[in-house]
Amino acid sequence: MAKPITFLSDYGLRDEFVGVVHAVIAHECRDARVIDLSHGVPRQSVLAAALMLARALPYAPPGVHLAVVDPEVGARRRAIALRAADEERLLVGPDNGLLMPAAERFGGVVEAVEISVSPWRLERVSATFHGRDLFAPVAARLAGGEALADAGTPLDPAELVPLELPRPRTDGDALVAHVLVVDGFGNVQLDAEPAHLAGRLGHTVEIGDGRAARYLRTFADAEPGELLLYEDAAGMLALAVNGGEAVSELGGLAPGDEVRLAVP
Amino acid sequence: MAKPITFLSDYGLRDEFVGVVHAVIAHECRDARVIDLSHGVPRQSVLAAALMLARALPYAPPGVHLAVVDPEVGARRRAIALRAADEERLLVGPDNGLLMPAAERFGGVVEAVEISVSPWRLERVSATFHGRDLFAPVAARLAGGEALADAGTPLDPAELVPLELPRPRTDGDALVAHVLVVDGFGNVQLDAEPAHLAGRLGHTVEIGDGRAARYLRTFADAEPGELLLYEDAAGMLALAVNGGEAVSELGGLAPGDEVRLAVP
Amino acid sequence: MAKPITFLSDYGLRDEFVGVVHAVIAHECRDARVIDLSHGVPRQSVLAAALMLARALPYAPPGVHLAVVDPEVGARRRAIALRAADEERLLVGPDNGLLMPAAERFGGVVEAVEISVSPWRLERVSATFHGRDLFAPVAARLAGGEALADAGTPLDPAELVPLELPRPRTDGDALVAHVLVVDGFGNVQLDAEPAHLAGRLGHTVEIGDGRAARYLRTFADAEPGELLLYEDAAGMLALAVNGGEAVSELGGLAPGDEVRLAVP
Repeated sequence: MAKPITFLSDYGLRDEFVGVVHAVIAHECRDARVIDLSHGVPRQSVLAAALMLARALPYAPPGVHLAVVDPEVGARRRAIALRAADEERLLVGPDNGLLMPAAERFGGVVEAVEISVSPWRLERVSATFHGRDLFAPVAARLAGGEALADAGTPLDPAELVPLELPRPRTDGDALVAHVLVVDGFGNVQLDAEPAHLAGRLGHTVEIGDGRAARYLRTFADAEPGELLLYEDAAGMLALAVNGGEAVSELGGLAPGDEVRLAVP
Repeated sequence: MAKPITFLSDYGLRDEFVGVVHAVIAHECRDARVIDLSHGVPRQSVLAAALMLARALPYAPPGVHLAVVDPEVGARRRAIALRAADEERLLVGPDNGLLMPAAERFGGVVEAVEISVSPWRLERVSATFHGRDLFAPVAARLAGGEALADAGTPLDPAELVPLELPRPRTDGDALVAHVLVVDGFGNVQLDAEPAHLAGRLGHTVEIGDGRAARYLRTFADAEPGELLLYEDAAGMLALAVNGGEAVSELGGLAPGDEVRLAVP
Repeated sequence: MAKPITFLSDYGLRDEFVGVVHAVIAHECRDARVIDLSHGVPRQSVLAAALMLARALPYAPPGVHLAVVDPEVGARRRAIALRAADEERLLVGPDNGLLMPAAERFGGVVEAVEISVSPWRLERVSATFHGRDLFAPVAARLAGGEALADAGTPLDPAELVPLELPRPRTDGDALVAHVLVVDGFGNVQLDAEPAHLAGRLGHTVEIGDGRAARYLRTFADAEPGELLLYEDAAGMLALAVNGGEAVSELGGLAPGDEVRLAVP
C-alpha cells in the first residue's frame, strides 16, 4: 500500500495547477492518497508556507510531504527530496528553505538528494511548472516505495538553503515580535510564545502604538468587538477581535511585520 | 472497510484548517475516505450550514457526517456525536443546532453522546480548534467501526440544542418568506416551497417593494437580465437573474432576511 | 477496481455543488477515486473550460472525465457521454463543445451516447443541477465498469456540437492572437505558439498599442516589474510581469480578446 502524500502550495484553486499535480500523482502511483494541506498560502511567501507546513505535519501520518512555493522556478535554485530523522518522513520541494522548519520538527535532515534532473521527472520539464513535471512524479514514486537514493544525486545536508526566520527580541520592558500568519478570520499569529507572557493571563497588554488588548484564554472570554491576545491552536500568541478581524483593526499587518507588546 | 466521512465547515480553504482535519483523520483511520461537502459556508453562520448539511446528506452514502461551524468554541457549548434513526447515520459536531435538520431528515436522533472529554480526543485539546483536536479523531474512530457509546458519555436527545428556523407566513394575499441561502451565482433561495405558488407557473409575482419576477421553470425560459422565480435544485423557491446576480439586483439580501411575494 | 474520475466545473467552492457531486459518485460507486481538476473556471465560460480540460487530461490516468460548464442547463442542449479513440478515455458532460478539444487530443470521438434520459439518472432530475442528477451517476456507473452503450441512446458523433475556437491570424508583419486563459497569477495565455516567434528569443515584441515585451525563457530572466512574453507550461505563448500581474498591466484582458504582437 502506498504511503500517503500531503501537498501544500501557493497555486490557489482557481486554475488547474493543483488538479494537474493530483492527476500526475494518480498516473504514477494509482493508490497514493493525497491530503491537501492548503493551496491558499500567500503567493510566493516561502516563510508563511514553511511555518504552515511545520505546524501541520505533526498531525499528518508519516509519508511523503510535497510542498511547492517556488518564486525562483526556472532559475538556478535546486530541487530536492529529503529524509528526516524521525518516522521516515520524506519531504519534496524546492531548495529555498521551505522544507527546513518541517524537517527540524522531525529531527533534522539525515539524507538529501538533488532531483533537478531526476530520472523520474516527466519527459519534458517546463521552465515554470516544476510541481507537475518534477515534484509530483518524484513524490509519487517515493509514495510507491522506491528508494530516496534513486530519485537523483546525493547532496550534503549542510549545503541545503536555510530559512531566514525572524526572532522576537526584548526592547526595555517590551517584547518586539513579528507577524507569522494572518488567517482567513483576520487573526494575527506572532512569533511570540505564551512563555513570553507567563503569569499575565487576564492582564492588559499594550500593542504597538498604545492600543490595549487583554490576554485571554479564548475569544469567548472577550467582549464583542474587543481586541484580545490569546494562545492560538498552534501554541503561539495571536491577536484577534471577538466577532471581527484583528488584521484590519490593526491596520493591515503582513507576515514579517513587527508588533510591539508592552505590559504596562 | 471504513465508513465514508463527509465534512462541512466554515473554515475556508485559505488556511490549513481543513487540511489538518483531513490529516488527523488519515492518521487515526488510514483508509477512511473523506468527502468535502463545502468549507465555504459564511463564517459562523450555523443556520446556513445546518440547511446546507440537510440538503446535501441525502445524496451522500451512509457513514459519519462531520460538521463544524462553531462560534462558541472554547465556551460552554457541548460537543456531540449522534446517531439518526435511518441508515445508521452518525453525526459529529458542536451542540448548537447545526446537526439537527440533517438528523431530522434521517428520522431524528436515537442516540446522543457528549464528547467534550472523549477518550479519543488528541492529547492536548486547544481552546479554539476543536475540529482538529476533538471532532476529527472522534469522526475517524467512528468511521473505523468503533461504537458510538464509547465516544463519550450518554446524553438525553431531548437536551440537544434545537435550531431556530425562520418560517414563512402569510400576510393578506402575500407570502412573507425568508432568505435561506445566497449561492455563488447570486441566486437567492427562500424558505418557500412551490406548493405556495401552486398553479402560478408563468405568472408574474411582485417581490418586496413592487419589483416583478416571472415564476418560470428554469433560467433558460427567462429573457437575458430578467428577474425570475423558480424551483431550485433543492426543491425550494428561489430568485435568480438570467445571466446576472439576483442578490445584487435585489440590493444585497442575506440569510434570514424577509422577502415578500405577492401574486397581483 | 473502479476507473478514476476527473472532475472539472465552474461551480466554485463556496456552495455545496462540488461536494454533492462527490457524494453522489461515492454513493453510486463506492471505490471510485475522484480527482478535482478545477472548479474555478470563469462562470459559464465553455471556451476556457474546454481548453483547460484539454490541457489537463494528458496528465491524468485514463478513466472517466466529467466536465460541467453548462449555461444552457434546463434548455434543449443534449447531455452526452463519449468514448475517445485513444486509451478508452470516457468523457461525460453537456453537448455544448466543452468536451471536444479533449476528445480531439485523444484521437477523436469513436462512440457517442445521448444520456439526457439515462436509466442511471437520479429518480427526479432537477431543471438546474444536472451535475448532481445526471452527470454524476452516469460518470460513477462508467467508472464502475458498466458499458457506455447502456448509458443512453446512440448518437452519431458527427452531430455533436463543435467548439468555436478563435484562431490567430497574420496582419502585415504582426500576429493577431487571442487570449485563451488568464490564470490566478495574472498571466495571460494566448492562442499563439512559440513557432510563431521562431528564432526571436531575447528580442523585443510590441504588444497591442506599442507596449514593449521581451520574449524570454522564464520569469527569472526578466527584470522585476518587466513585461515579458514566454512559453508557458502548456507550450503556448503567454504574457507575464515578473513579480506582478500582466492582466492588470495590460488593462484587463479576458478570454477571446485580441492581442496584436509585432516584432519591430
